[in-house]
Amino acid sequence: MRVGVIGGGQLGRMLALAGLPLGMDFHFIDPSPEAPARELGHLIVAPFDDRAAMFDFAQAVDVVTYEFENVSAPLLREVQVARPVMPSTDALETSQDRLSEKRLFQSLGIPTTRYVALDHEAELSRAIEQTGLPAILKTRRLGYDGRGQVPIYEPGDAGAAFQTLANAPGGLILEGRVVFEREISMVACRDQTGAVVFYPPGENVHQGGILRSSYAPFRESPLVRQAESHVGRILEHFDYIGVLAVEFFVEDGILIANEMAPRVHNSGHWTIEASVTSQFENHLRALAGLPLGRTDMRQEALLVNAVGRMPDASAVLACPDVHLHDYRKAPRPGRKVGHVTALADSRESLEELAPRLFEMVPFERHG
Amino acid sequence: MRVGVIGGGQLGRMLALAGLPLGMDFHFIDPSPEAPARELGHLIVAPFDDRAAMFDFAQAVDVVTYEFENVSAPLLREVQVARPVMPSTDALETSQDRLSEKRLFQSLGIPTTRYVALDHEAELSRAIEQTGLPAILKTRRLGYDGRGQVPIYEPGDAGAAFQTLANAPGGLILEGRVVFEREISMVACRDQTGAVVFYPPGENVHQGGILRSSYAPFRESPLVRQAESHVGRILEHFDYIGVLAVEFFVEDGILIANEMAPRVHNSGHWTIEASVTSQFENHLRALAGLPLGRTDMRQEALLVNAVGRMPDASAVLACPDVHLHDYRKAPRPGRKVGHVTALADSRESLEELAPRLFEMVPFERHG
Repeated sequence: MRVGVIGGGQLGRMLALAGLPLGMDFHFIDPSPEAPARELGHLIVAPFDDRAAMFDFAQAVDVVTYEFENVSAPLLREVQVARPVMPSTDALETSQDRLSEKRLFQSLGIPTTRYVALDHEAELSRAIEQTGLPAILKTRRLGYDGRGQVPIYEPGDAGAAFQTLANAPGGLILEGRVVFEREISMVACRDQTGAVVFYPPGENVHQGGILRSSYAPFRESPLVRQAESHVGRILEHFDYIGVLAVEFFVEDGILIANEMAPRVHNSGHWTIEASVTSQFENHLRALAGLPLGRTDMRQEALLVNAVGRMPDASAVLACPDVHLHDYRKAPRPGRKVGHVTALADSRESLEELAPRLFEMVPFERHG
Repeated sequence: MRVGVIGGGQLGRMLALAGLPLGMDFHFIDPSPEAPARELGHLIVAPFDDRAAMFDFAQAVDVVTYEFENVSAPLLREVQVARPVMPSTDALETSQDRLSEKRLFQSLGIPTTRYVALDHEAELSRAIEQTGLPAILKTRRLGYDGRGQVPIYEPGDAGAAFQTLANAPGGLILEGRVVFEREISMVACRDQTGAVVFYPPGENVHQGGILRSSYAPFRESPLVRQAESHVGRILEHFDYIGVLAVEFFVEDGILIANEMAPRVHNSGHWTIEASVTSQFENHLRALAGLPLGRTDMRQEALLVNAVGRMPDASAVLACPDVHLHDYRKAPRPGRKVGHVTALADSRESLEELAPRLFEMVPFERHG
């Protein structure tokens, strides 16, 4: 099967690493000739809105998927006439707009943060009354890794926050800040027959909006069941095919949906070593109409992202059962350039190792 | 690090799949433009004896290794002046000639089969006296997957056997046939500081000279210790860097070395899923001067080779914890085109699954 991936970043790279052993071929479209996936398939270098390039790309493959979310949904619907696009373009479009996403969660009975959409500064004080403070002002579109977000602690911060984001296309959304105990994410996969597999959730730590680490599995079973129920409903709603990731806050024993990503997800990278079948392989199996693989974990896992630059490989690989993933990206503050995954028989062993890993693996947000 | 691999077959392909996450680049040289590794790096299409192409290839990389054994050792020694070649060309040269290999085993105190080298038919009856019958007449060079071998059961078979192989360059060797209980192989890896890791041996079943399956780990500890001692001596002898595989027969509680391969080996493919660090990753770590990874197994493993053509992917992947490896080779009787690895908590579970796997995974030797 020839798989076309929109986006040639690390997710595309890891998809190809999972799919090549299954006999699949990969084609990528990405604006950068240095895209990390370039070594693993055919790369078309073109902007994501280059309609002609997108059609050339799609016509060379059997199925189109995406690892990058900010591609035009209308363009993708045109592509869909020529080639199947999975997961559903509707899911992608919903995830592109924080307002649609919140409305989806609400319509499916999934608790989410208090929110108010707004376009004008004049609406802000009324919005703050509804969400309470602290709150976070976000762009509805194109936010990732903590970009497009400004916290508001005091009513006096509101004007400056608005000005920071005022030029964002697509409007803003004010979200009440959840005082959460934990943040977890669940990765799940649905195949073409409607069969669904859930990975155990991971427990994530973000720093400045960027995922720093994730422990898996998160074991509190009532919450795991809640997550499976919520994620299952989203999958059904879209007649979804492939991997979906949903981030939740845990507040007073309740899951509050934060956001969803209709693709393989950073918080599921530990599945490469720790799970019987990785999120990447299951996504591809779903696209190919193959049976999904089991999601049991062989060991406990700790994922640590390398942000800004890569760690010293010798130091990392001298730790027992620690695995290195270099995305081959040029170093730059704030950029995810790789990750490491540590496996062990117990959470305690991982927690013991964690300080060493955090010291070894860079996290450089600013230049 | 830029790794140059002589040979672009499935071993090169799996080396690249292991090395790309470590941030390595791959270059291959292979006479076939359809070489299975072509998708995973830069491929120079040239015969292995094309001196100019070999130098172009070597000059573009930091280290040269090989996945194909029948490359000219003198040419490799020339290459070695320009770029480090690992493992040692001496080890390669020894493994290319069954006579040198036997002599090495003997010189290191490693039991091996009875043997007599011969060039002329007239020497055959005397040789048979020394080895006894049944015996196997083999070409000293260029034998693999059961090719270049003819069994001799009765003295009357000898003349015909000789005629079958008489045109082989490099002479013949007659080996006494071992009535073995089991055949095991050990994969080990030695790094640039002299540190050595051993994988648990696998227990192999050949059919018509082609590896059909391997169960790991083989657990009889006195034999495992014998194997580690034998393999350790070979590694030391060559000041070896990288992965070495040695096949042994088990006869009356003694290991009898059959042959060695100075490279990653088919009987170690289960290490991809079953081991903390695969044979492919450890080979590359050794080449790069990185610390070796642990070789503990996470589960019990059963490897089954697909010979002639690939199995139906849906059927294979519907089995829990079974992993598919498609080398993307054109189907052809007798050709290894892929493998599957099954993992389970016990050998018993694997033995229960085995008949289904053997039925699903083709083994087609003849057209």
